[in-house]
Amino acid sequence: MTTLRHPDFNSPELANAPDAKFVPAPADGVLPEDFFSTTNLPTYVRIKGAWRMPREPRMDSALVLDDDGLWIKEGRKLSKGDLVAVGSAEDGSEGIYVHTSSFLADEEGEFKFMTSEVSREKPIDYSLMAAILIDERERGGYPIWVTGPALVHSRARADMVWFIENGFVSALLAGNAVAVHDIEASIFGTTLGMTRTGEATTGGHGLHMRAINKVRAAGSIERAVENGVITDGIMHACVQKKVPYVLCGSIRDDGPLPGVYTDTAIAQDAMKAHTTKATMAVMIATALHAIATGNMLPAFVSEPDGTLREMPTICVDSAEFVVSKLKDRGTHQAFGVVTNAQDFMHILRLFVERELDGRSTVPASARHAAVAR
Amino acid sequence: MTTLRHPDFNSPELANAPDAKFVPAPADGVLPEDFFSTTNLPTYVRIKGAWRMPREPRMDSALVLDDDGLWIKEGRKLSKGDLVAVGSAEDGSEGIYVHTSSFLADEEGEFKFMTSEVSREKPIDYSLMAAILIDERERGGYPIWVTGPALVHSRARADMVWFIENGFVSALLAGNAVAVHDIEASIFGTTLGMTRTGEATTGGHGLHMRAINKVRAAGSIERAVENGVITDGIMHACVQKKVPYVLCGSIRDDGPLPGVYTDTAIAQDAMKAHTTKATMAVMIATALHAIATGNMLPAFVSEPDGTLREMPTICVDSAEFVVSKLKDRGTHQAFGVVTNAQDFMHILRLFVERELDGRSTVPASARHAAVAR
Amino acid sequence: MTTLRHPDFNSPELANAPDAKFVPAPADGVLPEDFFSTTNLPTYVRIKGAWRMPREPRMDSALVLDDDGLWIKEGRKLSKGDLVAVGSAEDGSEGIYVHTSSFLADEEGEFKFMTSEVSREKPIDYSLMAAILIDERERGGYPIWVTGPALVHSRARADMVWFIENGFVSALLAGNAVAVHDIEASIFGTTLGMTRTGEATTGGHGLHMRAINKVRAAGSIERAVENGVITDGIMHACVQKKVPYVLCGSIRDDGPLPGVYTDTAIAQDAMKAHTTKATMAVMIATALHAIATGNMLPAFVSEPDGTLREMPTICVDSAEFVVSKLKDRGTHQAFGVVTNAQDFMHILRLFVERELDGRSTVPASARHAAVAR
Amino acid sequence: MTTLRHPDFNSPELANAPDAKFVPAPADGVLPEDFFSTTNLPTYVRIKGAWRMPREPRMDSALVLDDDGLWIKEGRKLSKGDLVAVGSAEDGSEGIYVHTSSFLADEEGEFKFMTSEVSREKPIDYSLMAAILIDERERGGYPIWVTGPALVHSRARADMVWFIENGFVSALLAGNAVAVHDIEASIFGTTLGMTRTGEATTGGHGLHMRAINKVRAAGSIERAVENGVITDGIMHACVQKKVPYVLCGSIRDDGPLPGVYTDTAIAQDAMKAHTTKATMAVMIATALHAIATGNMLPAFVSEPDGTLREMPTICVDSAEFVVSKLKDRGTHQAFGVVTNAQDFMHILRLFVERELDGRSTVPASARHAAVAR
Repeated sequence: MTTLRHPDFNSPELANAPDAKFVPAPADGVLPEDFFSTTNLPTYVRIKGAWRMPREPRMDSALVLDDDGLWIKEGRKLSKGDLVAVGSAEDGSEGIYVHTSSFLADEEGEFKFMTSEVSREKPIDYSLMAAILIDERERGGYPIWVTGPALVHSRARADMVWFIENGFVSALLAGNAVAVHDIEASIFGTTLGMTRTGEATTGGHGLHMRAINKVRAAGSIERAVENGVITDGIMHACVQKKVPYVLCGSIRDDGPLPGVYTDTAIAQDAMKAHTTKATMAVMIATALHAIATGNMLPAFVSEPDGTLREMPTICVDSAEFVVSKLKDRGTHQAFGVVTNAQDFMHILRLFVERELDGRSTVPASARHAAVAR
Repeated sequence: MTTLRHPDFNSPELANAPDAKFVPAPADGVLPEDFFSTTNLPTYVRIKGAWRMPREPRMDSALVLDDDGLWIKEGRKLSKGDLVAVGSAEDGSEGIYVHTSSFLADEEGEFKFMTSEVSREKPIDYSLMAAILIDERERGGYPIWVTGPALVHSRARADMVWFIENGFVSALLAGNAVAVHDIEASIFGTTLGMTRTGEATTGGHGLHMRAINKVRAAGSIERAVENGVITDGIMHACVQKKVPYVLCGSIRDDGPLPGVYTDTAIAQDAMKAHTTKATMAVMIATALHAIATGNMLPAFVSEPDGTLREMPTICVDSAEFVVSKLKDRGTHQAFGVVTNAQDFMHILRLFVERELDGRSTVPASARHAAVAR
Repeated sequence: MTTLRHPDFNSPELANAPDAKFVPAPADGVLPEDFFSTTNLPTYVRIKGAWRMPREPRMDSALVLDDDGLWIKEGRKLSKGDLVAVGSAEDGSEGIYVHTSSFLADEEGEFKFMTSEVSREKPIDYSLMAAILIDERERGGYPIWVTGPALVHSRARADMVWFIENGFVSALLAGNAVAVHDIEASIFGTTLGMTRTGEATTGGHGLHMRAINKVRAAGSIERAVENGVITDGIMHACVQKKVPYVLCGSIRDDGPLPGVYTDTAIAQDAMKAHTTKATMAVMIATALHAIATGNMLPAFVSEPDGTLREMPTICVDSAEFVVSKLKDRGTHQAFGVVTNAQDFMHILRLFVERELDGRSTVPASARHAAVAR
Repeated sequence: MTTLRHPDFNSPELANAPDAKFVPAPADGVLPEDFFSTTNLPTYVRIKGAWRMPREPRMDSALVLDDDGLWIKEGRKLSKGDLVAVGSAEDGSEGIYVHTSSFLADEEGEFKFMTSEVSREKPIDYSLMAAILIDERERGGYPIWVTGPALVHSRARADMVWFIENGFVSALLAGNAVAVHDIEASIFGTTLGMTRTGEATTGGHGLHMRAINKVRAAGSIERAVENGVITDGIMHACVQKKVPYVLCGSIRDDGPLPGVYTDTAIAQDAMKAHTTKATMAVMIATALHAIATGNMLPAFVSEPDGTLREMPTICVDSAEFVVSKLKDRGTHQAFGVVTNAQDFMHILRLFVERELDGRSTVPASARHAAVAR
């Protein structure tokens, strides 16, 4: 049970504060333009030199003074002419003091809405992410992408291929399942037997096993691409574009495909060869691989000239939980995007294309000048 | 504890079934092309006229016959030459019988993956949704949109305005909060004091109250649009385009804005005036309003000529729960889309624009012929 | 766009159906006791020998006949004396036909609420689960437990120890993290540096690494138990009670602890040695291990006498998603429990203790008789 | 792109820091007892008077010095005799400096795990909640309970009744649905037609409408209790124990029941009559009512003697989202419990019963002395 202290009314700020100013309501249920909007914290109003607390405190309401005293009331309850406190300062300088310190010590010391770190209700800044990705490509950075199978299930395959083919992916870290579903889609047009429109097919439950078997028969993913067994998709693009990939084994794996690191310690070493070089990380729809990568990813990039900058780390998942978990395991720098992987890929690509179009028509010098301003 | 019966081996299908065919593995860890892929259900294999059950049953593996008997083994464990059952029929006609009936009675009687109704792992068919929306507009249908405040929080405002201005919205059903955030965004550029890029602002907690107060002072949303208090956004577009809207009150409301139905019975009547005319429903990011609308929405559309068709009902939310809940309250026809509201709006608009471009270059007759084929 | 056919009114059931019966409302806003409660499906009411569809269809309302025709109206809108259809049959036998077949073909052909398979809104039948667990112990079954680290984080450790010590766990399948957190809790009283009451501690981020190092120094978990490094908890109980455990490696692992199978193919083999013997599975708070186990777990148990029964498979997670995913990967028999792992363990133990108390006071013969009845 | 500054090596703390101490690894893959456990932040190690940054930075590893320089390595990679830095101070005082300030400015300035505010991975302190509830009852406080229908769906009814009957509930704030499901359970033994074990029943979809109709026929909930229509449950207990309740209308309501405030402004006033008196709030499984209550609930309690204390505010939901949303709307003081409502109620009651048993055997004076110590 936390007991709270009243503020020190003898402090110079409060001792010398003016009286609060009250103004009549212009109409029934309408507040004066500049009304003071209340919070749910202890609030003190200076009236005739004395600090008084209003009755019936609540947020999102107004301070009203009448013959019965000082109240907090909802705007809809006011009558024309009721006296309403005005001002916006919460530090006493306009005669109203909101006592935030006991409550919000860890935070900025101000009553605010929407302060949570990760929320589906926050806007997603695709422009910024697109700009960072293009900047990394321009400066020869090493962005690593860490993806879960939802990316393939949900048909963001074409967009992922686009990012690989256009030089935005320096390494792909994933598991057996990403490659299996991607290759099943290339060979059979399904993922786990589900069609592009989400229907389960007859006999579909064996298709991922047949895809695996074909690649095992070919000897490697590379050989299966050469032989024409795999004709499109993410793994195809990595092989064609010589983008290195690491497929890490897990106990959930069928097969596995040739080339998968079944030993998790060796897989960690293979991942670390890339996280050590990384200048950016994009993690999509995977708790296992995102947290594994977070474990070995520095929170910062050391530039060749010795300067440091924060490692841009984007984590996309359809729920807040994975991002919170990643942060709870120490990857504080992660920026969370709460959405569906398919939609994320599609819009990110769109914004990158738009930004590229924009940049191509503006000389780089002008652009940088603009940014510097 | 459910006891299961073995199948009736005297039934004609099983009594006359052939022996299963076994083929040698072509290499270590590689299965014959046509291997039978196992399920986790009771499985019977006909060998020399007798039905035998394999040992160590599991899914995603192969049926292997050796000197010790009949096994289910993972492909990676096979040696070259091991005898592996081939075939894909599960009804005994190739000597292998999967006993689905006791287990999957309610379902299609077949072992399948990805059969859940609502899942973030399922692809989202934006093309289909775009086509339906345009069809509705072409035939003079009455699509109703039911939206929660996340639509405004997350800056899908511009896309929603686009749909209103382009004739895809016959009525908007929402709550006080949608209008409040939308109007705060128009007047102050924030929602609940949060900027477009997701930052909480100083003094921001009172901005939605100031927005409400300005509209109350104007007397109505319509008047506030006329007076230039509200200059853009969803409510502005509805007023300008004369798209009817219903703002239903809830106990969570601040204000409320003028025009909000604070009496929920009267609000239901106002909603029903539109659900009765509806030929399609799009529900975005709201449990309360989606389920309220589902309660009063028929699952079907009666065409003027007396024919019936299913009511296209799209429900978008960032978690599976809302759609499942809507179905659990009887709105079985709802099609669930598990994604972020902002991303949904942006991609849906993109697909509608593309489809419109496509349609404008192809004569309608050709198009319909294509669909009919 | 699904077009629906009207029912065949010439079928004997409909051709010979009686007229619907209408009864006056007993008071304003009150329906007759036996009123027909509507659905959102096409509905046909027989009046003077003709089938008519009501206007303004919606669910949860009443069929009302007045001078303007046949309506569906909310009960609150009725006046005393309004004529309301009564009956509960939806097959026409009381003059009212609900046309379910076009809509609900895959389902039971009846309009129902709460039909989703997995939902936090469904009751959890702890009595049944407790009874199954005790039955398994009595008959010498082989229940396997598959757990994620949330079990240890959230302090259900003591309850898990109780189940191990009391003979309800034949094998424990888990990952490195479960053992690491459990051992950190034994040595330092924290998990990932978090105290029992959920506070992060200074210097806490290294404690799990120190715990791992101590066990690596000891050479094995068994040796660390013998040496008194590990003095309580889940791993301690397994070692003391000689309950076999399998710790499977993943790329997320720190350390790992000695005894962890870092090779995932070998880990799968170690798991399968137990799933092959399993007569029941309890999966708690782990997507990775639950789905890995589901992959290799038969959906049925073969009793020594050749009879088959369904494998009791319980899957506990704080969201519906893991259970749906497990089912989507073919583990149809899984029964989902949507709750917090800590709470699940505590209540399950409570119910097992109660059931044991009950059984100890009732002779087994009487009990079985009761069940048989 | 955030550029980070290196620390000021001329500051007295760093200028006068000692060299870091290195100790040989006692065995292959085993670290010295007191090893320094790394973070993912910029780290500086003093060696021969110079500050050096290690190569290949990552968290959860060790600082190793060899002929090639200073590295961060996983413990498993060390050989016996490798030189490993020891110490736990991160401020340079043992020759190792972790540069937290640029990164973690808003937080406590220390690298920690598990710092998120609301997470299903955090333990739930039922003892504390039980103690607070009993304290409130002893001191004559006014705890208000705000509940959603999941409480009734999931059969926590009996536990809620227990809390009402034993004096832990001063007012119940809920919606029409809570009362409807509760009364359906009393009359028909189902909720939305679902049985106690979660099965949908034939004809069940109309049962909640029949329950509503019976109460409308009786005239009020009170009358229906008197008449024996309602014989048990939450509403029955409120009526019998004269615990005031507020049933607020929403557009989702069927019926509604007599006594429900259909006007949301009037409903808010009825709620506020209780929030103004509240000394504690327990919010269970409802976003709408929790946020509505949060809007009007002060974050503090004013004791009669003028002292202030924090308002104990517990918010229970099966996902983190509702609690985060509540905090994002300004109810910062809310303490989140992520679990199933049914399980929460059962365990909370258990802990309250235990605590009551404990208190009854210890004189109050001794107890308070114990707490004071």
